[in-house]
Amino acid sequence: MRLHDGGRAPNPRRVQIFLKEKGIEIERVQYDINALEQKSEAFTRMNPMQGLPVLELDDETFLAETVAICRYFEETVPEPNLMGRTPLEKAQIEMWQRRVELNFMMPVAFSFRHLHPGASKIEPVQIAEWGRINQERAARFMGILDRELASREYIAGDRFTIADISAFVACQFMKPARIAMDEAHGNLKAWFERIGQRPSTAFD
Amino acid sequence: MRLHDGGRAPNPRRVQIFLKEKGIEIERVQYDINALEQKSEAFTRMNPMQGLPVLELDDETFLAETVAICRYFEETVPEPNLMGRTPLEKAQIEMWQRRVELNFMMPVAFSFRHLHPGASKIEPVQIAEWGRINQERAARFMGILDRELASREYIAGDRFTIADISAFVACQFMKPARIAMDEAHGNLKAWFERIGQRPSTAFD
Repeated sequence: MRLHDGGRAPNPRRVQIFLKEKGIEIERVQYDINALEQKSEAFTRMNPMQGLPVLELDDETFLAETVAICRYFEETVPEPNLMGRTPLEKAQIEMWQRRVELNFMMPVAFSFRHLHPGASKIEPVQIAEWGRINQERAARFMGILDRELASREYIAGDRFTIADISAFVACQFMKPARIAMDEAHGNLKAWFERIGQRPSTAFD
Repeated sequence: MRLHDGGRAPNPRRVQIFLKEKGIEIERVQYDINALEQKSEAFTRMNPMQGLPVLELDDETFLAETVAICRYFEETVPEPNLMGRTPLEKAQIEMWQRRVELNFMMPVAFSFRHLHPGASKIEPVQIAEWGRINQERAARFMGILDRELASREYIAGDRFTIADISAFVACQFMKPARIAMDEAHGNLKAWFERIGQRPSTAFD
């Protein structure tokens, strides 16, 4: 088994943190996303969507999509649990994980891709107005998160889950997307510092 | 338990089809998305993201996000299985489900929201260029799906899953998004007709 990995880009980071939380170490092959190595013919045979990371199993089955890769490890290495135990908990964690992705992580990514000059290779038609709308959406969602975090320590409940991983990686990616955390959002700031103290979130 | 439902909009449709496949009947409350009923204060207390559908459990727990609602029913009513049995199958179905969402369903939704005059209520700043880019992305993904469906009957493997539900609903939503299926995509067309014959996909 080996992981086709993509350095410090947001989706590769999510799987890296997930694996560290699980205590799983596997072989890695690094790709340079800015050099568009994931667009090669050989890579496209592994993942027609040309995205990283991709998990290669020993029988040359290829699993793509960040959360699908996490699901595979959650099912094969159940502890520590990061995606829920009971039906209700699984659904609540998935709800928050998806809220974070759709209303925070994707807006941050759109802001970066449509506003940062360095993103023109991966987003050939940059639409500044679309970038600005997404900066606002990300900021609005941080307000919602801050209110939610007034009553609990983690995004999806009283323990660390995959929803915290996605939100933390989105927060770290805000700088190149030119989005700032509001100083008034004390609950969000405290959560961000708390997650940043976990060994899994340190850069290699 | 009751479902706060949204008529024929894509996400409500996905849960409706999922429940019919499972043979689950529950109480429903319908909301008019075009009248923005999901933006009311009362609704926002159930789901701060103001989206439909929302599942209300008997203890007044509210579950939002289409796939999280599906996950809850998959875990509580396991048969017929729609999201995978083994770790590998669960991951492969989630991989295809997410590919369909990110590269097809969302581009179709962006095309509709940014190009259709009737969508200006739900998307106040419509950016036509962003709509056109997404029409192209949806068309490109249909080419990938057509190639994949040359070797199997369903999107994620040899049986019907949640990935087929998402892709079918996206296809049905292409008309208001002004996207057409390519006549040359015979595998995709045959798949679309096959799914359309399932009783679960008929409109109420």
